[in-house]
Amino acid sequence: MKISLKLKAVALFATVTLPILSQAQFAKSEDAIKYRKAALTVMSTHFGRIGAVVKGAPYNKDAVASDANIVAMLSTLPWQGFGPGHEGGNALPEVWSNADKFKSNADKLQETTAALKVAANSGDLEAIKKAFGATGQACKGCHDDFRKK
Amino acid sequence: MKISLKLKAVALFATVTLPILSQAQFAKSEDAIKYRKAALTVMSTHFGRIGAVVKGAPYNKDAVASDANIVAMLSTLPWQGFGPGHEGGNALPEVWSNADKFKSNADKLQETTAALKVAANSGDLEAIKKAFGATGQACKGCHDDFRKK
Repeated sequence: MKISLKLKAVALFATVTLPILSQAQFAKSEDAIKYRKAALTVMSTHFGRIGAVVKGAPYNKDAVASDANIVAMLSTLPWQGFGPGHEGGNALPEVWSNADKFKSNADKLQETTAALKVAANSGDLEAIKKAFGATGQACKGCHDDFRKK
Repeated sequence: MKISLKLKAVALFATVTLPILSQAQFAKSEDAIKYRKAALTVMSTHFGRIGAVVKGAPYNKDAVASDANIVAMLSTLPWQGFGPGHEGGNALPEVWSNADKFKSNADKLQETTAALKVAANSGDLEAIKKAFGATGQACKGCHDDFRKK
């Protein structure tokens, strides 16, 4: 049963993300850079709104769930903008020279935003705070190693 | 039955969009402008990928459905960046002086992207082409009247 669920999760992941990954089709680096920055900007705006609630702003369950839903979807997107040959922008060369670690960080972010979405939809503010913290750590980990200061 | 379904659709619309609309909270115009440009950039990238298929690139149902899903979600977002006092960027003053028409255009875009998503998930390429055309018209209508040339 446990294995079956895991297989289902893997199949779902493949269905959801592979079409996106297989479409990493930017002819120009400037378009790839613009796209990844844009996806990260939208994501961080909505993540920041959850952050305001975590720091004490009034909690509205529907608003936080909506923000978390947007964050979770957006977190799947920026990576296609970091394809081969699209160095530049705020990205350090290590994105390409240490691609396995970068991918591991990208996966970690998507895992933590998926958990944040679940927490936000549950309406449990303590769970949201915990999941927000884990997501923030995933952001920071990647920025520390792969983003220009 | 028909009325009941319609009411359900209205309730769903309210649930999905009202929390977003009520969160139009940008302290600085530069952040609002950056946000709306970013949302439109991500949306237009994925819309452009569907456009390539409409113009003859190989059709992959899952990829187009994924792109249409992203377009539909992103089409709900930019408007919160056009709040009172956030003039500037590529937006003409008419966004604020003719706000009813702008809102009508924004609603039209969201209707057409929702229909595009339905068509994309159906896998009917002719329906996708038609819905793509209607969405493109909605983009153009708004750009003609509300965006700097």
